[in-house]
Amino acid sequence: MAVQARGKQDHAMRLRRIEGQVRGLQRMVEDDKYCIDILTQVSAATSALKSFSLSLLEDHLAHCVAEATLKGGPEADAKVKEASDAIARLVRS
Amino acid sequence: MAVQARGKQDHAMRLRRIEGQVRGLQRMVEDDKYCIDILTQVSAATSALKSFSLSLLEDHLAHCVAEATLKGGPEADAKVKEASDAIARLVRS
Amino acid sequence: MAVQARGKQDHAMRLRRIEGQVRGLQRMVEDDKYCIDILTQVSAATSALKSFSLSLLEDHLAHCVAEATLKGGPEADAKVKEASDAIARLVRS
Amino acid sequence: MAVQARGKQDHAMRLRRIEGQVRGLQRMVEDDKYCIDILTQVSAATSALKSFSLSLLEDHLAHCVAEATLKGGPEADAKVKEASDAIARLVRS
Repeated sequence: MAVQARGKQDHAMRLRRIEGQVRGLQRMVEDDKYCIDILTQVSAATSALKSFSLSLLEDHLAHCVAEATLKGGPEADAKVKEASDAIARLVRS
Repeated sequence: MAVQARGKQDHAMRLRRIEGQVRGLQRMVEDDKYCIDILTQVSAATSALKSFSLSLLEDHLAHCVAEATLKGGPEADAKVKEASDAIARLVRS
Repeated sequence: MAVQARGKQDHAMRLRRIEGQVRGLQRMVEDDKYCIDILTQVSAATSALKSFSLSLLEDHLAHCVAEATLKGGPEADAKVKEASDAIARLVRS
Repeated sequence: MAVQARGKQDHAMRLRRIEGQVRGLQRMVEDDKYCIDILTQVSAATSALKSFSLSLLEDHLAHCVAEATLKGGPEADAKVKEASDAIARLVRS
């Protein structure tokens, strides 16, 4: 439980930082910064979003999917399918 | 010129929308929403950031790189190299 | 077991098709085909490799990770960590 | 011209190496290698394909797109649009 509470705080902090990156991008556009410099910051924000989702996904596999597996039955298979679909969306986003 | 002013407004609007998506993610984490639903929204925000950078890149190729090409010389080569490096960072982000 | 044998045949078939795509790319380069047409085929081959890895990963989560979860203990955590690391490499490749 | 001939040889060599990686993947599946080890090799092959396309794209920007820009007119705009669409497919593949 404590672990998941720490997870939640960590997730919230990462997202606040990403929000800051996106605001920074808005200022760069407003100030007519050089395109390539803006693109570098977009790549950084995209990487940060991907890291966030990878961390969320690891928690999900370790908690929700693992619990469903222990219960077994069709729900376990459904959770694996659902996680795999989320991974596919992530890989293709 | 008018095109680039429109481009700037379009870029600013896309980024405000992405900022909204990232705030929405923060609320989802705060409200303990289901991981998979959060992941779906992260994929949407990541796609939106990628679309933004593709649109910025197209403008850059059509304006800055094209101008450098018309001037010619080593600066033209440097601009193509710089744009290619930005594309590589984008593809790998 | 039968399922995994079918999985193996399916994986082998996908890879043979991808090998065919890569050979096709070699012929396109040899025949001086237009860069953009080659790039379109590279994107198709990259997508096929990603689909292959997503299918492999789903099998892995449904079999190896699920079995480790049922046994429990540190090995279960290690399997989730290992799968998450593989997903991260995939997302960033 | 000599540069482009070298480019062609370099492209052909990269693709032969990628073909070798895909054959290696087929052997791994055939020999029932551990999923995670196969996934690591798939990520390597995917990265190699992306590097190949980035190198091809840089050549294309430096030669075909630059030539069209020098000629000017609607063909120049069309080349930039075409290259941008190829970059978008690459980023999303």
